[in-house]
Amino acid sequence: MDFLFLGMPKISSTGFLMPASPIRKLTPFAEKAKQEGKIVYHLNIGQPDIETPAGMIEAIKHIDFKIWAYTQSEGTPEYRSKLSEYYHNHGYHITPEDIIVTDGGSEALTIAISACIDYDEEIIVPEPFYANYNAFTCLAGVTVRPIRSYIENGFALPPIHEFEKLITKKTKAILICSPNNPTGYLYSRAELEALKKLVLEHDLFLIADEAYREFCYDGQEFVSPGHLDSLDNHFIMIDTVSKRYSACGARLGALITKNKDVHAAALKYAQARLAPPAVAQIAAIAAVDTPQSYFDKVINEYTERRNLLVASLNKMEGVFCSNPGGAFYVVAKLPIDDSDAFCEWLLDEFDYKNQTIMLAPATGFYSTPGAGKDEVRIAYVLNTNAIARAMECLEIALNVYPGRLLSTKDVHETIIH
Amino acid sequence: MDFLFLGMPKISSTGFLMPASPIRKLTPFAEKAKQEGKIVYHLNIGQPDIETPAGMIEAIKHIDFKIWAYTQSEGTPEYRSKLSEYYHNHGYHITPEDIIVTDGGSEALTIAISACIDYDEEIIVPEPFYANYNAFTCLAGVTVRPIRSYIENGFALPPIHEFEKLITKKTKAILICSPNNPTGYLYSRAELEALKKLVLEHDLFLIADEAYREFCYDGQEFVSPGHLDSLDNHFIMIDTVSKRYSACGARLGALITKNKDVHAAALKYAQARLAPPAVAQIAAIAAVDTPQSYFDKVINEYTERRNLLVASLNKMEGVFCSNPGGAFYVVAKLPIDDSDAFCEWLLDEFDYKNQTIMLAPATGFYSTPGAGKDEVRIAYVLNTNAIARAMECLEIALNVYPGRLLSTKDVHETIIH
Repeated sequence: MDFLFLGMPKISSTGFLMPASPIRKLTPFAEKAKQEGKIVYHLNIGQPDIETPAGMIEAIKHIDFKIWAYTQSEGTPEYRSKLSEYYHNHGYHITPEDIIVTDGGSEALTIAISACIDYDEEIIVPEPFYANYNAFTCLAGVTVRPIRSYIENGFALPPIHEFEKLITKKTKAILICSPNNPTGYLYSRAELEALKKLVLEHDLFLIADEAYREFCYDGQEFVSPGHLDSLDNHFIMIDTVSKRYSACGARLGALITKNKDVHAAALKYAQARLAPPAVAQIAAIAAVDTPQSYFDKVINEYTERRNLLVASLNKMEGVFCSNPGGAFYVVAKLPIDDSDAFCEWLLDEFDYKNQTIMLAPATGFYSTPGAGKDEVRIAYVLNTNAIARAMECLEIALNVYPGRLLSTKDVHETIIH
Repeated sequence: MDFLFLGMPKISSTGFLMPASPIRKLTPFAEKAKQEGKIVYHLNIGQPDIETPAGMIEAIKHIDFKIWAYTQSEGTPEYRSKLSEYYHNHGYHITPEDIIVTDGGSEALTIAISACIDYDEEIIVPEPFYANYNAFTCLAGVTVRPIRSYIENGFALPPIHEFEKLITKKTKAILICSPNNPTGYLYSRAELEALKKLVLEHDLFLIADEAYREFCYDGQEFVSPGHLDSLDNHFIMIDTVSKRYSACGARLGALITKNKDVHAAALKYAQARLAPPAVAQIAAIAAVDTPQSYFDKVINEYTERRNLLVASLNKMEGVFCSNPGGAFYVVAKLPIDDSDAFCEWLLDEFDYKNQTIMLAPATGFYSTPGAGKDEVRIAYVLNTNAIARAMECLEIALNVYPGRLLSTKDVHETIIH
């Protein structure tokens, strides 16, 4: 063997800079806690415990092909047709030709960003935002320009003049998510009209991640930019069956736009990776016929969970969260020094009657350094009994956590610094 | 409405430059031919007509989950463990920890390229090569530096000094595909040893697309860089269940490497898109137990098809193709002026007894402008009866095609120019 001292080629800077999932970093600590025999309440992830509609599961079991073949790159005509029926029932004017079926909402976002925004150009995103937006933009070499939203008004849309301050020649798009992950905030029609005016005036793309469309509470109306007029050339909708039908493992999303150039470009990306998953498309056709009773039950369940969670949190000393209108997350402000340290400590050192909780530090959802250090995201993907026990744990944990801020004054100082 | 003259934001230059699939461009012509009542023999695509193993189909029908949940981002422990068993049976030392399960081979390649090669850096690829490599590199802003291989020696590995000529500070990797799409060429152990020496000397990644591993004919041995020693830090294997089990619609691939940095970076990409498809992983576990008799039958079938195809082609005046050792493609040289025009003409204007053929112009598989104008890729994904009829069509078509080159001299001139 000639090569005694073997070199090692270097990975790319993109590969190096690609952000690690802020939630998955805690996984080794959760595993250790379980190995030690602790019960861990997983309030850290967006994997619902809700059953997938029976019609979808049956559709999988009744596949009748003998060759598990590629489908069309843009999705099967049958599925796109059925999906446009779903959109019609939800107040959109979307035809099968507007739809490109993707490998989950993640791929739809990756394609939308790369097809619309060049390397070194910018996208404005209200923060906190879904942590993986950092990864999708990193992949395309696109810079995120965050605008802070604040827990005090429930993470409402920041004032439009804050967006205007950030718009330069490099700005290509605004990305929103409503109902929001991680805040649960549901954008109002007035907020979306303001965004519409902004993107039309500055000729920007408006990309909306609508993964949580079905999850709106207290009778509040869901409004999409797709429900407003005049946005055909500017609007790109990101959708997924993951949360709607508790079918995260299907990996089936969609990129929807009436902008012909974006559609044509996105189709080239879709063709390059050949096709979305075939069985998932068969099941998703059945999913469109899921009865309203399924959603009613789910909405009731989530409303109860949210009510319990929000009430429990706000009862704790030094803790605050708003009452979010949608999705299944809340961001809560805690009297702590450092949410990353706190979430690790919960798993690594704390237990109450052999139980502990896994939460997502909010730092991973902010782009601004230092933001979110006193906030955590809590996903209410467990039933009310489990949530009650988890909140009991949290209250006790906050009392004994060594990094607890002692008074309201301390809390204020942390916020200011 | 305030905005009478609406602007339209521009797509990205990546979105604009992303190459369209060279094969799909012909689809409208194929559809027109079918609408006119013509029988179209599809020898243009890599979708086999072989049945998926019954065990995989049964596994889909017997899923027993109630929540179609995310799996681990890197794939389930069960599937990675079973897949490493498959690799063990094929002479590799691959552990479950080396494997990241992906959305098809396409995603594995996209991740490998982005994780290893930066925007504006280069990858060397022997051409002709699988057309979508152009798209995967475009997405990452990576430049392909092609090296011609030639039909005269069956598209064997070009001489190593040709690679050395192209290696600069920007070169990060060499990408190979064996058995090759589109040429069917199977790299020998000696060729791989030469490549190994090259990548170790110049500290480059060696990425191998092994989608067609199972399809080797005439008792020839399949050799992977993964079978050679000392390449742990340099080798990245791209795999997929698509062709192996005729399960293209499963969208299940894998990126495999023992390089810890590449693995860690690739895992971040995998985490960003959350998970590969869940049902496909369940089916793919079953697939590993597919009996050898299934493969024996498939190999026999493909061998017969190849023999018929190669013999038929070489009998035609002015036509030449080599006898490829693997995959299910041949590249044939035809006495024609322009393979794009010819393939379009076959669908648009030609028929023989109401039949015609769809082929892939080889131009789409070359990066060098003008290369492949007298070549087509033919996929033998139809049974021997259909191949026989298709070859009859082709022979007649070549006799009446207005752009036929009249003599061997003409053919030579086309090659030279």
